[in-house]
Amino acid sequence: GKRVGVLAVDPSSPYTGGAIMGDRIRMMEHAADRDVFMRSMASRGELGGLAGATWLAAAALDAAGYDPVVIETVGAGQSEVEIATLAETTVVVEVPEMGDEVQAIKAGLLEIADLIVVNKGDRPGADRAARQLKAMLSTAGGRVTRPAPLVLMTTATSGEGVEALRDAIDAHRATRTPAQARYRATALLRRALATRAQASAAGSDAWDDAVTAVAEHREDPFSAADRLLGFDR
Amino acid sequence: GKRVGVLAVDPSSPYTGGAIMGDRIRMMEHAADRDVFMRSMASRGELGGLAGATWLAAAALDAAGYDPVVIETVGAGQSEVEIATLAETTVVVEVPEMGDEVQAIKAGLLEIADLIVVNKGDRPGADRAARQLKAMLSTAGGRVTRPAPLVLMTTATSGEGVEALRDAIDAHRATRTPAQARYRATALLRRALATRAQASAAGSDAWDDAVTAVAEHREDPFSAADRLLGFDR
Repeated sequence: GKRVGVLAVDPSSPYTGGAIMGDRIRMMEHAADRDVFMRSMASRGELGGLAGATWLAAAALDAAGYDPVVIETVGAGQSEVEIATLAETTVVVEVPEMGDEVQAIKAGLLEIADLIVVNKGDRPGADRAARQLKAMLSTAGGRVTRPAPLVLMTTATSGEGVEALRDAIDAHRATRTPAQARYRATALLRRALATRAQASAAGSDAWDDAVTAVAEHREDPFSAADRLLGFDR
Repeated sequence: GKRVGVLAVDPSSPYTGGAIMGDRIRMMEHAADRDVFMRSMASRGELGGLAGATWLAAAALDAAGYDPVVIETVGAGQSEVEIATLAETTVVVEVPEMGDEVQAIKAGLLEIADLIVVNKGDRPGADRAARQLKAMLSTAGGRVTRPAPLVLMTTATSGEGVEALRDAIDAHRATRTPAQARYRATALLRRALATRAQASAAGSDAWDDAVTAVAEHREDPFSAADRLLGFDR
């Protein structure tokens, strides 16, 4: 009886511009289920960009009672790091063939992953890839603030390992400390403040004049912002 | 009689963690000049992170009458794209030895550069690198919104080409259209609104309770933000 929200963020970016839609189309077989909300979002590099639009949609689903809200992203850019800050559990999914990528992604994995999954576990090399990841994580220095992420293996096509992954995600959510919850709440609140302040100001009559004043260097952006927010009263 | 501001952003990031200080130390010979403001900023991947801190410092220098304000960044991550949105002129500096990097950086260059500089022009291969970049830019499809960036060559150690670069930057600033100025002003204003709203809320007595309410899922972040900003009155 759970209502599940899924946001799939297209890998369109200032750099690649592309979009991989195959997985999305396969997921759409669940889209008619009324307890499943599913949207594919494409967002190019405007200010706040991908991370901004995604977290807004996720917060709306959360407020509407969807639990869990799943956000799928591609790659590991700055946007993903920002989304990871707002997420309760960050799962990094790799495939057995990652090979030389390992060193490159190492630092990123250590920073943002709560769980690491090697998918396509039925392919040759899957075990070795998982072992490599575990070894890499256990020898990582300077990582004192939290335990190393678990490494799991799944085969999405057969469902193998998916239940174990679900349990691991539930276990991770259950062990959140109050400090972690406050850290995440602070990030959410800061985002919401920015979003609401911008929406309020951009909807006001004074918005156009403020943009003109800043463009013509007659007013600095901070003073204009204070005026638009009513902080100068 | 110009007052020049220089912000050098250290390449510390969630991924690399490193910092290159050699150039910074060499620049410090100018730091005693009272018409030169120079700071090296290091910022790790907090929300808003590198781009947030940098633009704040730049806006403060701008308001204090420093002109130009130079922001030096490393790499071409999402943060650099955001800073490029806020900058009047974005100069991408390459070295002759970029070689195979060319294809990888191609899309990024096209998106954010107003001017491209091949530095270390005295090294073998500098001419070839400049020609490669020009050819690449002239054959780039789908780039209809603005002209291809100029490619210049400099040798920083001898000063060769630096005057031509300065003139090209001045020329670029002079040709900004009102629409471009408004676009940049809008980005600056949105940033300022976010910054001011967050600072105001985090300084209020109600901040702590709001964080707790969001952390305990008693209040959604948008309602809490509206309350903190006084929008619910």
